Amino acid sequence: MKAIYAEVLTIGDEILYGQIADTNAQFISAELDKIGIKVVRLSSVGDEEDVILRALEEAKDRADLVLMTGGLGPTKDDITKKTLATFFKTEMVENAQVLQMIEDYFKSLGQEMGAIIRAQAQLPANAEPVFNRLGSAPAMWFHEYDTVFVSMPGVPVEMKVLMEEEIIPKIQQHFDTPVIYHKLVRTFGKGESDIAKRIHDWAEALPEHIKLAYLPSWGQVKLRLTATGSEQASLEAEVAEQIELLKPLLPREIFGYDKEELEEVVGNLLFEQGKTVSTAESCTGGYIAHLFTKVAGSSRYFVGGIAAYSNEVKRNRLGVKAETLEEHGAVSEETVRQMAENVREKFQTDIGVASSGVAGPGGGSPEKPVGTVWVAYADGERTYARKLQLTRDRKINITLTSYIVLDMIRRFLSGLMRDK
Amino acid sequence: MKAIYAEVLTIGDEILYGQIADTNAQFISAELDKIGIKVVRLSSVGDEEDVILRALEEAKDRADLVLMTGGLGPTKDDITKKTLATFFKTEMVENAQVLQMIEDYFKSLGQEMGAIIRAQAQLPANAEPVFNRLGSAPAMWFHEYDTVFVSMPGVPVEMKVLMEEEIIPKIQQHFDTPVIYHKLVRTFGKGESDIAKRIHDWAEALPEHIKLAYLPSWGQVKLRLTATGSEQASLEAEVAEQIELLKPLLPREIFGYDKEELEEVVGNLLFEQGKTVSTAESCTGGYIAHLFTKVAGSSRYFVGGIAAYSNEVKRNRLGVKAETLEEHGAVSEETVRQMAENVREKFQTDIGVASSGVAGPGGGSPEKPVGTVWVAYADGERTYARKLQLTRDRKINITLTSYIVLDMIRRFLSGLMRDK
Repeated sequence: MKAIYAEVLTIGDEILYGQIADTNAQFISAELDKIGIKVVRLSSVGDEEDVILRALEEAKDRADLVLMTGGLGPTKDDITKKTLATFFKTEMVENAQVLQMIEDYFKSLGQEMGAIIRAQAQLPANAEPVFNRLGSAPAMWFHEYDTVFVSMPGVPVEMKVLMEEEIIPKIQQHFDTPVIYHKLVRTFGKGESDIAKRIHDWAEALPEHIKLAYLPSWGQVKLRLTATGSEQASLEAEVAEQIELLKPLLPREIFGYDKEELEEVVGNLLFEQGKTVSTAESCTGGYIAHLFTKVAGSSRYFVGGIAAYSNEVKRNRLGVKAETLEEHGAVSEETVRQMAENVREKFQTDIGVASSGVAGPGGGSPEKPVGTVWVAYADGERTYARKLQLTRDRKINITLTSYIVLDMIRRFLSGLMRDK
Repeated sequence: MKAIYAEVLTIGDEILYGQIADTNAQFISAELDKIGIKVVRLSSVGDEEDVILRALEEAKDRADLVLMTGGLGPTKDDITKKTLATFFKTEMVENAQVLQMIEDYFKSLGQEMGAIIRAQAQLPANAEPVFNRLGSAPAMWFHEYDTVFVSMPGVPVEMKVLMEEEIIPKIQQHFDTPVIYHKLVRTFGKGESDIAKRIHDWAEALPEHIKLAYLPSWGQVKLRLTATGSEQASLEAEVAEQIELLKPLLPREIFGYDKEELEEVVGNLLFEQGKTVSTAESCTGGYIAHLFTKVAGSSRYFVGGIAAYSNEVKRNRLGVKAETLEEHGAVSEETVRQMAENVREKFQTDIGVASSGVAGPGGGSPEKPVGTVWVAYADGERTYARKLQLTRDRKINITLTSYIVLDMIRRFLSGLMRDK
């Protein structure tokens, strides 16, 4: 199988001014990577004919496939379409099929099609239009100079749907691409180098056609397995087999696969076990409650919570004893245990969790420097508390603490927790 | 003044695979835009000598300035440095000054410098090293072929500090750049087209050298004024004058300038007026509390809050009357008024705010479709409630509702609110 080389060309002044990140280029690259096409260059140029022409000239000699976004639509004066017509030495013609698409699109919105919009049915004569169900500008497919050129609108949501539903299948039909199968294994609680040590022998023994990559973020490390071959079912089976060998090496760390977020996994565990949860948050200030409630359907297990920022609220709303706060302070094992136990009782839930810490940047002391955080879990049978020593950054401390609390719930519900 | 053309070249396989967004290119473009340099192309290529060479060859003919990131450091085999030596037809030599920098850097970390690290002192003979205070790989400045080439490490935090502290001043010294002054005016509560209508005459009357751009996000519209000239002080004065003319056109909408976020502005108003606030959140589930508490120093005005997801919590913890919930439902003016009033009382704060709505995607009905949200503000003197009709997207509904509540507090504290 011959390697297929692709280039991505994004068109738009707003990218060159640094006003927006070029997320289109990243999305397209990732999609091409998934189907085994090697992206060799990404370029961005402005909305000007000569620079677009020059970029196309350069790309056609290097690439089998050129994917472009932007410069379509009436406000940009359709610069990309006109430039493509020049590049292919052809003229613009009204495409009856596209005119029909656009008319249908505006009918579905209950709107009249204006004269400016009608111009969108003008395409280079050699263009094969590709239907865009989210907008009035179609994508275009060209096969010239022994290279495939695809032009898509720059609006990210339109481009993404076009790529996934139309362009990727067309590319797979046109080119002899290998079958690629990706599987993401999500872990929480250990750093990249710790995990690398633990799974070293397993990783070394992976067959040649299964590659491993580490993707760390917020206390998580995602392990991406990429298998390349010619048949989907056998790749899936092989990867599943490898994951079975991996599981015992990270028995407590693996929490999910592919797109499963920690907050969803914990929510599903709570729902399946018919359990409810409440939160008592000092330093995380509502962020744990937010992580629960951002998941659709969370009202089935998340009952409510208290953001207890001041000591008065800890006393009056959560029943933390005044003596405890005085003797041990708000950032202490004693306080956080009472917070978790009392919120559980007051909100009548199966589980109560709590956080209290010095998020920073101020408020630290020699005994309790910025980044000192106590978290607790209470379920009526036991109360577990743990001290964390995090960073000097407020945002990181809030986010990490919240995910650590979620993971604590996961481990207790999954029977993975060593009791204190 | 002659226009200066720049290109940005980022090097790294991880960009081509779509594993990371190329935030370096965006940052560099925005920095160059600020000093009046026109970026004409962004390119990304892999860690391979031939493609880097080809990209450099192309860029040198088009650009006065080429900024590169990535491919430095021992793990990448220092591909960029070696390629630059080839490109400039020179050889690698150990630079005594850089060796000293690296030794000092490792001494400051209390570490020994290894042999691999010593290789970082090897530079192309024509390189002018630029000190990197956050890492061991220096940046390099070259002036050849009538073009300036700058090579920087790809680690974003190192690149950013190098750009801001070293490279931008050097560029300004080397090239005859215009003085550019940017000012961001932040508004909340009106859409882009509404604002454009209101300020149309003012925008039309702006002098030629002051440009206006609209940057919308999350209920905000930022107006960016960019003034170009030769003298900083007079540009600042002119922009300040224009803003004085703009203010009466958007008296309720403008809430801040430059980097001021809405949550900081509201926090400062509360602090200045010596007022405290508490939150009672149903559909926003803790996100308003999180927006308050993510700001350092928020314990001076944010006392606490309740995430009241279930009706039991609304009754038992917030004292919403059972009859109210039964008669009007949780998503109603009556419920949200009681929530705001009662949280204020229970948490003994000056102000209480509340939210209750159908965030989606489920839970809608013909009378209360997804996106129906009630919000309320209570300060003891009055209680104000407002109905919102938002979107079908859960995340957007949670975020927009939270910012609308913050803006409501801002308007009351600033005396901008028309009472009900």
